[in-house]
Amino acid sequence: MNTSDLQKLLASVRAGTLEPAAASDQIAAAMRAAPFEDLGFARVDTHRELRQGFPEVILGIGKTPAQIAAIASRIVGRGQALLVTRAQQDVYEAVRGVAPAATYHAEARAITLAQGEIPRGRGTILIACAGTSDLHVAEEAAVTAELMGNTIDRLYDVGVAGIHRLLVEQNRIQSARVVIVVAGMEGALPSVVAGLVKAPVIAVPTSVGYGASFGGVAALLGMLNSCANGIAVVNIDNGFGGATMASLINHL
Amino acid sequence: MNTSDLQKLLASVRAGTLEPAAASDQIAAAMRAAPFEDLGFARVDTHRELRQGFPEVILGIGKTPAQIAAIASRIVGRGQALLVTRAQQDVYEAVRGVAPAATYHAEARAITLAQGEIPRGRGTILIACAGTSDLHVAEEAAVTAELMGNTIDRLYDVGVAGIHRLLVEQNRIQSARVVIVVAGMEGALPSVVAGLVKAPVIAVPTSVGYGASFGGVAALLGMLNSCANGIAVVNIDNGFGGATMASLINHL
Amino acid sequence: MNTSDLQKLLASVRAGTLEPAAASDQIAAAMRAAPFEDLGFARVDTHRELRQGFPEVILGIGKTPAQIAAIASRIVGRGQALLVTRAQQDVYEAVRGVAPAATYHAEARAITLAQGEIPRGRGTILIACAGTSDLHVAEEAAVTAELMGNTIDRLYDVGVAGIHRLLVEQNRIQSARVVIVVAGMEGALPSVVAGLVKAPVIAVPTSVGYGASFGGVAALLGMLNSCANGIAVVNIDNGFGGATMASLINHL
Amino acid sequence: MNTSDLQKLLASVRAGTLEPAAASDQIAAAMRAAPFEDLGFARVDTHRELRQGFPEVILGIGKTPAQIAAIASRIVGRGQALLVTRAQQDVYEAVRGVAPAATYHAEARAITLAQGEIPRGRGTILIACAGTSDLHVAEEAAVTAELMGNTIDRLYDVGVAGIHRLLVEQNRIQSARVVIVVAGMEGALPSVVAGLVKAPVIAVPTSVGYGASFGGVAALLGMLNSCANGIAVVNIDNGFGGATMASLINHL
Amino acid sequence: MNTSDLQKLLASVRAGTLEPAAASDQIAAAMRAAPFEDLGFARVDTHRELRQGFPEVILGIGKTPAQIAAIASRIVGRGQALLVTRAQQDVYEAVRGVAPAATYHAEARAITLAQGEIPRGRGTILIACAGTSDLHVAEEAAVTAELMGNTIDRLYDVGVAGIHRLLVEQNRIQSARVVIVVAGMEGALPSVVAGLVKAPVIAVPTSVGYGASFGGVAALLGMLNSCANGIAVVNIDNGFGGATMASLINHL
Amino acid sequence: MNTSDLQKLLASVRAGTLEPAAASDQIAAAMRAAPFEDLGFARVDTHRELRQGFPEVILGIGKTPAQIAAIASRIVGRGQALLVTRAQQDVYEAVRGVAPAATYHAEARAITLAQGEIPRGRGTILIACAGTSDLHVAEEAAVTAELMGNTIDRLYDVGVAGIHRLLVEQNRIQSARVVIVVAGMEGALPSVVAGLVKAPVIAVPTSVGYGASFGGVAALLGMLNSCANGIAVVNIDNGFGGATMASLINHL
Amino acid sequence: MNTSDLQKLLASVRAGTLEPAAASDQIAAAMRAAPFEDLGFARVDTHRELRQGFPEVILGIGKTPAQIAAIASRIVGRGQALLVTRAQQDVYEAVRGVAPAATYHAEARAITLAQGEIPRGRGTILIACAGTSDLHVAEEAAVTAELMGNTIDRLYDVGVAGIHRLLVEQNRIQSARVVIVVAGMEGALPSVVAGLVKAPVIAVPTSVGYGASFGGVAALLGMLNSCANGIAVVNIDNGFGGATMASLINHL
Amino acid sequence: MNTSDLQKLLASVRAGTLEPAAASDQIAAAMRAAPFEDLGFARVDTHRELRQGFPEVILGIGKTPAQIAAIASRIVGRGQALLVTRAQQDVYEAVRGVAPAATYHAEARAITLAQGEIPRGRGTILIACAGTSDLHVAEEAAVTAELMGNTIDRLYDVGVAGIHRLLVEQNRIQSARVVIVVAGMEGALPSVVAGLVKAPVIAVPTSVGYGASFGGVAALLGMLNSCANGIAVVNIDNGFGGATMASLINHL
Repeated sequence: MNTSDLQKLLASVRAGTLEPAAASDQIAAAMRAAPFEDLGFARVDTHRELRQGFPEVILGIGKTPAQIAAIASRIVGRGQALLVTRAQQDVYEAVRGVAPAATYHAEARAITLAQGEIPRGRGTILIACAGTSDLHVAEEAAVTAELMGNTIDRLYDVGVAGIHRLLVEQNRIQSARVVIVVAGMEGALPSVVAGLVKAPVIAVPTSVGYGASFGGVAALLGMLNSCANGIAVVNIDNGFGGATMASLINHL
Repeated sequence: MNTSDLQKLLASVRAGTLEPAAASDQIAAAMRAAPFEDLGFARVDTHRELRQGFPEVILGIGKTPAQIAAIASRIVGRGQALLVTRAQQDVYEAVRGVAPAATYHAEARAITLAQGEIPRGRGTILIACAGTSDLHVAEEAAVTAELMGNTIDRLYDVGVAGIHRLLVEQNRIQSARVVIVVAGMEGALPSVVAGLVKAPVIAVPTSVGYGASFGGVAALLGMLNSCANGIAVVNIDNGFGGATMASLINHL
Repeated sequence: MNTSDLQKLLASVRAGTLEPAAASDQIAAAMRAAPFEDLGFARVDTHRELRQGFPEVILGIGKTPAQIAAIASRIVGRGQALLVTRAQQDVYEAVRGVAPAATYHAEARAITLAQGEIPRGRGTILIACAGTSDLHVAEEAAVTAELMGNTIDRLYDVGVAGIHRLLVEQNRIQSARVVIVVAGMEGALPSVVAGLVKAPVIAVPTSVGYGASFGGVAALLGMLNSCANGIAVVNIDNGFGGATMASLINHL
Repeated sequence: MNTSDLQKLLASVRAGTLEPAAASDQIAAAMRAAPFEDLGFARVDTHRELRQGFPEVILGIGKTPAQIAAIASRIVGRGQALLVTRAQQDVYEAVRGVAPAATYHAEARAITLAQGEIPRGRGTILIACAGTSDLHVAEEAAVTAELMGNTIDRLYDVGVAGIHRLLVEQNRIQSARVVIVVAGMEGALPSVVAGLVKAPVIAVPTSVGYGASFGGVAALLGMLNSCANGIAVVNIDNGFGGATMASLINHL
Repeated sequence: MNTSDLQKLLASVRAGTLEPAAASDQIAAAMRAAPFEDLGFARVDTHRELRQGFPEVILGIGKTPAQIAAIASRIVGRGQALLVTRAQQDVYEAVRGVAPAATYHAEARAITLAQGEIPRGRGTILIACAGTSDLHVAEEAAVTAELMGNTIDRLYDVGVAGIHRLLVEQNRIQSARVVIVVAGMEGALPSVVAGLVKAPVIAVPTSVGYGASFGGVAALLGMLNSCANGIAVVNIDNGFGGATMASLINHL
Repeated sequence: MNTSDLQKLLASVRAGTLEPAAASDQIAAAMRAAPFEDLGFARVDTHRELRQGFPEVILGIGKTPAQIAAIASRIVGRGQALLVTRAQQDVYEAVRGVAPAATYHAEARAITLAQGEIPRGRGTILIACAGTSDLHVAEEAAVTAELMGNTIDRLYDVGVAGIHRLLVEQNRIQSARVVIVVAGMEGALPSVVAGLVKAPVIAVPTSVGYGASFGGVAALLGMLNSCANGIAVVNIDNGFGGATMASLINHL
Repeated sequence: MNTSDLQKLLASVRAGTLEPAAASDQIAAAMRAAPFEDLGFARVDTHRELRQGFPEVILGIGKTPAQIAAIASRIVGRGQALLVTRAQQDVYEAVRGVAPAATYHAEARAITLAQGEIPRGRGTILIACAGTSDLHVAEEAAVTAELMGNTIDRLYDVGVAGIHRLLVEQNRIQSARVVIVVAGMEGALPSVVAGLVKAPVIAVPTSVGYGASFGGVAALLGMLNSCANGIAVVNIDNGFGGATMASLINHL
Repeated sequence: MNTSDLQKLLASVRAGTLEPAAASDQIAAAMRAAPFEDLGFARVDTHRELRQGFPEVILGIGKTPAQIAAIASRIVGRGQALLVTRAQQDVYEAVRGVAPAATYHAEARAITLAQGEIPRGRGTILIACAGTSDLHVAEEAAVTAELMGNTIDRLYDVGVAGIHRLLVEQNRIQSARVVIVVAGMEGALPSVVAGLVKAPVIAVPTSVGYGASFGGVAALLGMLNSCANGIAVVNIDNGFGGATMASLINHL
């Protein structure tokens, strides 16, 4: 029973098409159901959608394909939306065994299966990235946010070294309700974008770069120390995390 | 001419109480006005309120009291709201010379003067902090968010070592539209809070701690690596930044 | 002659079934025996069991399979318990040549052979881990602690993002004599667990995560800076070290 | 109602001197009492003694003397033992206003007031330190452990550069139930000590040193990477944390 | 005998106003003169102007005022230009004793005395800084470059958060022969500037900021990882070094 | 229309061979042309040559061979010079499909195609490297600078451990207009070279070394902290960046 | 002409078997010979043996096998001793082509060829290592020091966790003229050894360990911060450097 | 009884002026004497001179003046040489109370009292430093080495930016038996010096510098990664440690 199920049920009570006693029984039954399923190696958080608006998402690193498929099977079996991030091809093969309708997004390295009724976000989430090398992370954000019910506007390769590529799109950027900015190297793009808009900016540093980029640390520090206002930062290469935050905001 | 002025003017046009030609003249005059004032040592960004909803804020470190007072004088003279962060007592003395009505918030180390018409945020911003030592940063966030037009709910000293102090307040936390979580040491509080709410969580690490806390780095890393969803992070001790982000979201 | 041998011998003396002179001869002979065996590339510490309650353990990285097998052969030949940690399959092949009864624990990456009389720990050691990706480390701890004579209770995937999965097990956690908590990412779980129990908590950070987790540094710092009391920390991914410490405590 | 009160009450029930119904009323009343007191800037965790065997301890950095005195006043008023760590003289002046019987330990920088019935630990906790410069931290550990009911044996200035100063005390070290080793600079002492004893070793790195000691980081890393078994580590300069862990173990 | 002296002498030879033999004597005498003066605690490099175009400069940290004055006295006595950087007021007092005509630049923390014939640079060096807090460093660069014979154009407080303050000055920036960009916090300004000009950009990170700015490391890394071309970087807060590099280029 | 085209056109106007009106039309047409081409995954900055004197360069890491070939195709199609850095053999295969005349420089790991009229630099750029292991980076610098129109003098394996190898070449070094110094390990070479010349020195740290060289950090820090004047630094292994900076200077 | 050649020649002059004029001619010829050979990619320092007592050594990382063989060929051709460190099997194949008599030491990863007359060191160099995993580095030191004319005593696997393995060898250790101590993990062994001997101790940290050993940083810091006297440190895993230093001392 | 006493006693036996039995009694008495004195807060290592050739030295940081005076009193009372490093004026006042003849070296921040018969080192120790700001550390080394019986040659301010100041002194440098090189900033001087001499070079990094010198880390890394042979390194600012190592070598 997710939020949407609960709202429908209470609407039926209000409408008089469902008796309060029957509704009470249904809610109690859902509550009695364990809020997680214990697989031994994993405790699938079955109440997360109720609590946070989207079911548990599977991070595809550090787990075997079999473990991922087993967790996915439980989520899919409950009729919930499935998202596996950082998934290689072998994980997709395993997941397809339990969820044949799932899609693999190669650029984003993500597996998705849209199920259930996912509420739509209110406005557009614009995803800007600084360079072509940031695409993996930007696409992880895009695939995540789309599955969570948001409309996405992609604006790629607008790094500050040729700032006219960005400035020419000011109207487009200013019409977004939330902005995600993905950048590696010096990570300067979020500062410039945040100076142009009223929308909250979620900055996602990437590990793109070499030498003193230290696997994304330079970009991360740049974003944390931004002189612009209205920026908050997520982990290096965490396109998923940026999109989740943006989606929560866009659903307010 | 801030957003609110502009909206009133256009409403007058719609209402027929102002001629389009006159309105056009007024807008053009505002546009002709330089978008910044050049003081030599500073270029005050006079269009920031129009662009981002709140006038330029003065970071009170690295500048002399005289420089801060000069910048403050320009902002106050334009009828805009004044906020000076990280201000010591001597800065307040200097600012009072140009803005006698300004208030000094000692715990928050901030100077404020509410001026102009600041739009109200839609819901409540809850500010939670892990310990009493985090109060400086939490109060900087609170003072900032209040000046930006938000209703604040303070929930202090609810660190995870005695988690019942937090869990007993679940309803209060869940009724916030945005949550700011301020924590030093291991910085675990945002992860626990984010697991309980649908609201976006802005995590503010503090430099509270010693030894291997490395001036807030431990807390910062903890927050960036949170296993919970819907968290984004700002700089160490940046209560102002957390509040600005939260306010932008709360005004959506 | 390990502690248990020594206790039996002295018990025989007390019981009158062994003459003090004969006992004295046996002890002197054991003392004359070299306290280590010199293999040139290794000096096997044959007195470690007497001194510390468990024979020398072989760390399986940085040594060739042949070197490991040679050391293992000496330990096994003395009738002592064998433990090789961080062992790949090729090491197991080599060790099996000298210890055919040895077992390979794939998830834990450990080789064990229980031999001799290992004293039992007094209570239960509970091993909690935050996520499925932490299993390698948690199982290394479990296999180690079991070989050292302890009863283990496994509680896996109880990370703080869905804290109800942990809180529902409070009784189980509180009934342990020692608790090992294994966690990567932000490493917040030990703080929450330590706030719930009187038992000492051994925190084991793992290298699970990416980006700013810096190979487990974020989790390590989180644990070192815990605001909860009764936590001590071992090296990143050191399930073996956590279990050894817990076992020493559990044998008090 | 702390653990000791609860045990007495249940003993009375067993002994027949208290009616079950009356006992039940008393327990229920204690449960109804809030598990914390909310002072606005602090939520004093009044159930911590029940949960963890010792009341909340006040870390004396980052708080004003007035805040510390207010918290101390609540703890003392409940008849619980008081411990303030990292306390300067001005904090002591403030605390003395609310707890005139409190003692200031200058070397340990701690304020204590023994109250209530604190259970005794079973064996001796030996505290070894490497050099005279480590005394602040060693004494913080000693004062803490003594207040928590433990017998302490101090063994100071036994660093590895003159290892005979340590080896001559082997019997004394081996007779301890738990060992705390405090060391700065290279932090090698815990490795040597742990190689000599069966007791668990709690290693406390200190910030003693200069240059590449990086404020205790060198010692911390040395201890985390110890080649000896049975060592766990706490934060740099955290004598209090080491003592708390040791005391929990010594009370098992 | 500096470069300018040498050129005059050779010009006289060419012009026939000086006999080759006499010129040869003068050059040989200069060559016989020791290329440094040994003060015991310092070896003043008297040939540096000949080799590098500007005499030795005194870094005013880590030396006593007396040592600085003694070195300054030797430089001034040779008729060379004097520059002391990072000089506090007490250093100026000492230097004034040996060089009464020297000037103290408080904002730049520098002492200068123009002497001898310093060749003029060919174009203008533009010095841009991101914020008012960067002024100390920007002024150190300005004072240095002016003393070295360059025309300076100051453009202060043009940080990327209000990028219109910078873009409005494009013509001014593009007319410079060399650009020095001084910035703290995220250090993004050099990337944006370098994208707009053909001139080489010398980036000077400053320690302005707090928290994760790590004393200028964030800005330094941002500049080293710039996605723009034509940027090279000097040490944190090294306005002097940036100006020296710019001056060498401007004299080509 | 690059700078050279523009200059020719204006020369024709001056010469009277082109009517001002016709020239105006041509310039306006070029201005109407988009200053970038949007490929979706990339926005090729077609005005960069006009703005900065050399067309956009493709960094060959983090992009697929197909993406690189597509971008290269646009650049080559416009008649501009092509440079792809950090290119593996498979990238070269893909690029050859769209630019059959392109050359692969294996030691430099770069692809080049000289096209259009590239202005010549004024003097010689000397490239010195400390050891044979630095050749990849030194050659990347050499290939880049040559394509940008500069004359190169290579001076390899002149590290400071045998400083006579360097000192014997003083005349050669001093005759360069700009010097690039490439060095790994302790990165001392730029300091010694800068002490010998008047030319600006661009220091390029390399990741050559092991252990505490930390992937080039030791060399980078050495260069940033140089006690010599006239040094500026680029990112670790950034031969391209060093050459671009040197070329800009050499074209002044 | 190395030192030994020079000494023989001068002895012949003293003995009257060589005319001063003839000797002078021979020395002059050697001096006229270039002090290095320029291979383009390398400048072989042919005077290093004369200056430092041992010819140039080839570091086998970052160079191609062909480059290494070409340099080796020059050294061997001059009759000097050859040492290639960090050499893989393919490098040995290439070197064998130019120096068929060269030997490959697999454990030490070194290629050697003893040629010429290498003076003997005066005493014994003892090489101690903490564990079997440190053997690669210890053997690199041993092979280097032997080729440089020293007598070696190997004492392996004497880490501080079982300190009796070390203490039993005190006489052996104290009879060495120089001691090299190789250790990873916490790097405590040099401190203990230096406390027992008068001989200078060269400490070589290794990258043995995992997690917070950070590739040898923990051991390096431990050694730099040693509380014992008479220790100096070389780079992580630099067995060659430790042996060179020890050999220089042993030849005094 | 130090080494010198022991040698005299045995010489008397050899000479027949002392009966073996009497000698034996004297040695046995010395051996019965405790090898350390226990002051509670310190265990003074009274056998260190016998073991290592020089009595225990007192590091003057982290101890109170009273503690230092108490330890000094024991050393002086035994007729041994006294050395207190890092001593401020107040420590000197306290030490003078127990050792009126002690001298304070202000530049070196050291207290010395020469007592007993200290054996002379064989050759000269040359101490070179890069700049005037390194004098504190260079003098600490000089004072230490002189007290330990060595002849010192000081060569100050010979940094690599003006390398002729160093090269002109090659004969002087090459005539030293051991060389100590003290340098901050990029720490390049040891590499250049080691390339010129056969003597072992002890490199002492200093914290001189700012910004990315990171308190001496840049210099430390430069020295650890030196491309020259025959260098070993001690802790940042550890002039004492460098001198101790050099003295041990010079006494071989």
